[in-house]
Amino acid sequence: MAYCAVESKLAEMGHSLPLAPAPLGAYRAFQTVGDMLYVSMQGPLLNGMRPYVGKLGLGLNLESGQAAARLAALNTLAQIKLALGGFTRLRTVVRLDGVVACSDDFLDHPAVLDGASDLLSAVLGDRAGHVRSVFGARNIAGDVPVAVMAIAQIHP
Amino acid sequence: MAYCAVESKLAEMGHSLPLAPAPLGAYRAFQTVGDMLYVSMQGPLLNGMRPYVGKLGLGLNLESGQAAARLAALNTLAQIKLALGGFTRLRTVVRLDGVVACSDDFLDHPAVLDGASDLLSAVLGDRAGHVRSVFGARNIAGDVPVAVMAIAQIHP
Amino acid sequence: MAYCAVESKLAEMGHSLPLAPAPLGAYRAFQTVGDMLYVSMQGPLLNGMRPYVGKLGLGLNLESGQAAARLAALNTLAQIKLALGGFTRLRTVVRLDGVVACSDDFLDHPAVLDGASDLLSAVLGDRAGHVRSVFGARNIAGDVPVAVMAIAQIHP
Repeated sequence: MAYCAVESKLAEMGHSLPLAPAPLGAYRAFQTVGDMLYVSMQGPLLNGMRPYVGKLGLGLNLESGQAAARLAALNTLAQIKLALGGFTRLRTVVRLDGVVACSDDFLDHPAVLDGASDLLSAVLGDRAGHVRSVFGARNIAGDVPVAVMAIAQIHP
Repeated sequence: MAYCAVESKLAEMGHSLPLAPAPLGAYRAFQTVGDMLYVSMQGPLLNGMRPYVGKLGLGLNLESGQAAARLAALNTLAQIKLALGGFTRLRTVVRLDGVVACSDDFLDHPAVLDGASDLLSAVLGDRAGHVRSVFGARNIAGDVPVAVMAIAQIHP
Repeated sequence: MAYCAVESKLAEMGHSLPLAPAPLGAYRAFQTVGDMLYVSMQGPLLNGMRPYVGKLGLGLNLESGQAAARLAALNTLAQIKLALGGFTRLRTVVRLDGVVACSDDFLDHPAVLDGASDLLSAVLGDRAGHVRSVFGARNIAGDVPVAVMAIAQIHP
């Protein structure tokens, strides 16, 4: 079953799904519209804590940035599971928009986002799909170094 | 009628819809595709003027940022009304992407965006829906502190 | 045929389609979902080279920024052609999200993006459509001054 496949693949890689973070205001963590699922921007939260804080190029190295992007992707998967009751109804991740908080001269944003894309690819295979955007932002709430936002196609 | 409900609720709260701002170039203020409505990024313009100018954390406090986000949401509603001839065809706001212009150490972006989300929630109720994204940007055209961009589901 | 019209119009204007850039990681350059086409963020690459480098307001003037935005739009068109095997199946560009790398006091982001919007309008006519967003970012990978991301409606 696809559901088991995703979570056991995560376990194999030494990962598990964090608690899906609650919205920080009057909005929703996810919303389905027909056969599309929209997920709110997810940062590198781990069950309410922030293990990665700071900016790329300012005390935070690329490996930490990639680990933070991976955690943001794990939170996105946690929201998808919560929205769909598992992963069998997930057809494909369509789009992943990333934001990297960094110094003025840090320019390795795509390598940071690969932390998220590589994880999705490893656990979802063909269903990882996704076009991508990324750029350097001034900062992100909670002083986290990266956040991602996903749109997915689902089986309604 | 839903149309009246939205505008009379706004009036109750002491708000009214501003003039829907015209595009600043060769693009459209809104576009419908099937049962989806895409709206261009809206800033805190008030009938051609900019009552909120500057960056959060640099001379602009949180209350002003929230008021600016509220005004950007009002402009979004004005575009939705223009696109649909009222609000009866609006099913739900699906996604709201926000951008906050701020200092390097301002990190309260979600609280700023709540100015927009809370307004949508108050006037649209269940139809406010929306997942959300927000981050700190270097700056925004017109030196405004915040801008939002909406996708909505409509009755075609 | 619409296919010829787009490319001959480009030739008339002195432009041609660059090679569609390959993704920089584990994501896709484009993805279709029903009658929608999502394209990854495109920068001003010209067959693997970066003719425009730097930030607006820091050694790069508006004309260069507009030329860079035009080149990013040409890369978007190259991806659309690759995805659809031409332009006949393109119904309308729905949304174009732009990011401008600039100094703290550069505020002419919409004029920069017009380089992209005006090109789409000139070669696609009514099919150029698109709502738009733009803001100033800290920076963009490759130190390029602008990047755009498109969603289009297609004939499935």
